[in-house]
Amino acid sequence: MTDHAIFMRRALELAERCRGFTAPNPCVGAVLVRDGQVVAEGWHKIYGGPHAEREAIADARAKGVDTSTCDMYVTLEPCSHHGKTPPCTEAILEAGIRRVFVGCKDLNPTVPGRGTEYLLSKGVQVELGILEQECRDAIADFMLWKTQGRAWCTLKLAMTLDGRIGGPTGKPESVSGPESHRRVQLLRARSDAVLIGGGTLRADDPRLTCRLQPEGNAQVKRPLAIVATRKLTGISASFYLLRERPSELIFWTTDEAARSDTADRLGDMGCRVWGLPEHSAGGLDLAAGLERFMRDAGGHYVLCEGGGHMAMSLALQSAADELKVFLAPRALGDERAPASFAGRSVESVAEAVDWRVLRAEPSGSDLEITLRPQAAAVGE
Amino acid sequence: MTDHAIFMRRALELAERCRGFTAPNPCVGAVLVRDGQVVAEGWHKIYGGPHAEREAIADARAKGVDTSTCDMYVTLEPCSHHGKTPPCTEAILEAGIRRVFVGCKDLNPTVPGRGTEYLLSKGVQVELGILEQECRDAIADFMLWKTQGRAWCTLKLAMTLDGRIGGPTGKPESVSGPESHRRVQLLRARSDAVLIGGGTLRADDPRLTCRLQPEGNAQVKRPLAIVATRKLTGISASFYLLRERPSELIFWTTDEAARSDTADRLGDMGCRVWGLPEHSAGGLDLAAGLERFMRDAGGHYVLCEGGGHMAMSLALQSAADELKVFLAPRALGDERAPASFAGRSVESVAEAVDWRVLRAEPSGSDLEITLRPQAAAVGE
Repeated sequence: MTDHAIFMRRALELAERCRGFTAPNPCVGAVLVRDGQVVAEGWHKIYGGPHAEREAIADARAKGVDTSTCDMYVTLEPCSHHGKTPPCTEAILEAGIRRVFVGCKDLNPTVPGRGTEYLLSKGVQVELGILEQECRDAIADFMLWKTQGRAWCTLKLAMTLDGRIGGPTGKPESVSGPESHRRVQLLRARSDAVLIGGGTLRADDPRLTCRLQPEGNAQVKRPLAIVATRKLTGISASFYLLRERPSELIFWTTDEAARSDTADRLGDMGCRVWGLPEHSAGGLDLAAGLERFMRDAGGHYVLCEGGGHMAMSLALQSAADELKVFLAPRALGDERAPASFAGRSVESVAEAVDWRVLRAEPSGSDLEITLRPQAAAVGE
Repeated sequence: MTDHAIFMRRALELAERCRGFTAPNPCVGAVLVRDGQVVAEGWHKIYGGPHAEREAIADARAKGVDTSTCDMYVTLEPCSHHGKTPPCTEAILEAGIRRVFVGCKDLNPTVPGRGTEYLLSKGVQVELGILEQECRDAIADFMLWKTQGRAWCTLKLAMTLDGRIGGPTGKPESVSGPESHRRVQLLRARSDAVLIGGGTLRADDPRLTCRLQPEGNAQVKRPLAIVATRKLTGISASFYLLRERPSELIFWTTDEAARSDTADRLGDMGCRVWGLPEHSAGGLDLAAGLERFMRDAGGHYVLCEGGGHMAMSLALQSAADELKVFLAPRALGDERAPASFAGRSVESVAEAVDWRVLRAEPSGSDLEITLRPQAAAVGE
């Protein structure tokens, strides 16, 4: 790995720290480097707060580092317009930084003006495209909000080496280890809603609460619960979500069911019931649900923890923007146990839905694998 | 990662280069380090040839490096006895090396004398246990041969994110990509036999030949074919393996079937038919087959490319010594497609068979995951 890549990798790590809390801004990280060493770090922490570039410069000043002797590495092209905060290009010029390495250009069509051109016009050296794909992947959520106007959907799967997400008896059983459970809690803590299918609601009666907060984040998220189900039957008022969290519960169902008496009763209990159109690939149009969730509930991140049918629907509808697979290194071998993707009938392997692997890392004794849709990243 | 770990990691990489060709010796790697740089490398290349330590010293001499100024890192304790080659401890003393970092002790009970004690008695500084678990994992095959007297079995699985190893129609279809296919060929090139079940023979009529050789290996392996099947019925003389490779084909079957007329006919065609005892966990005792394969055919490495039932039998019988999972980042969602582990009936997830993840690395667009049994490594 070149030095450039090492420094940009560090900036990418910083960018991840506050994912979930910067929306509708992207997650951005920046480092200042002098004599081959990272001497200051910054990242965008919260919407309305300083951008990563300003955070890194402030970090340098707090440490007594002369910023004019530093290079900057930043995952996204610095902004040159006045938004909630003054433009980062001005901060870079004031700090006397003479070289800026940029991960990827800001392709957001609604942004006026370009930071790169402005910096170049002021005599700052700018190099574009360091770890470009990784930096582009780091703002894919932001580009999705801008271009599709819907919430980003992360599909979580915890499965065995034979693709089983639970035991064969139907009673709720976890297949992954404690560290993976902890990480799923952290995913919830960064999400605005947890999405499940009606089958999971009826079988598991889950709480879908978040019992952990990401380290170093003062902010607290309390994700809503979304239940996608074509039929509203068999939903007992004694379920935890209806009993304890009705005002935090949203049902996605058919337009017809949304006009039913049952829907009215759920509404009287405090739940929201949204009718969604049918998707051409079959089932509820989940992207339409994600769009309405962003529009009406202001949510930007949805974590799907549904079963195999929900996973397959999201995949077929190109609405699973990221996969988090917690692969438990164990085999069950019982074909009655539920599979990670299910409910489909194909003729050939060629009909598989493809992703690409971003990274694989240990999660306790499990493996955490992050994937994105095979199609080119959003915005490319 | 500390410098010690970096150098030992390199020695471990070298050790892997000739896996398959050193049996019944272990795979060992060694590097010589001066001023924080690797200046010479060696690895055991073939049974009867020089050990890794001598190769590294010879490499240094060929490069004009003064070995007395170097430290040695070697994955396994140097030998101090006369085997096929003179003891490595003598070579280390002759080379004037004053510090040796050793990955793990040689626990082979049949080896007389210990290199560490000998080197210490001659005033050489020895540090034991650098990346000890990794170094122990690197000789687990060798320890298995010594302690269990049976061939090492690698179980290969190429599967989707929903644990499917093929399409739903039963016709042979691959789920993984070209780089994974290449790597499976390389696994075959390092194996003495490829093992499948009778179902795979009957459904796919495979060749099981090896169409690639590992780079930098002059040696050519021509793995035998092993078919494990309780019944010898339905095996047509027109199958490729019977038509083209009968003398390279071994059947594992029940003692009863091995005494049948069909077995005689297969024998007349040139095949070997071995009767195996029943395993207490059900099915043929595959470890007994691996034992006989080592004893009667002199084979040390078996690569299982069978289906889900074979995989589950190996797992339940603790006869899958290593798993190579090629995870293709795609989902099929059709529950009729065959699963990676199958044919079992359990009550709960607690009955799963566990492994531990050694590493996960990209294989083209797939992920290659290497696992070992959860139980402590052999010999510990």
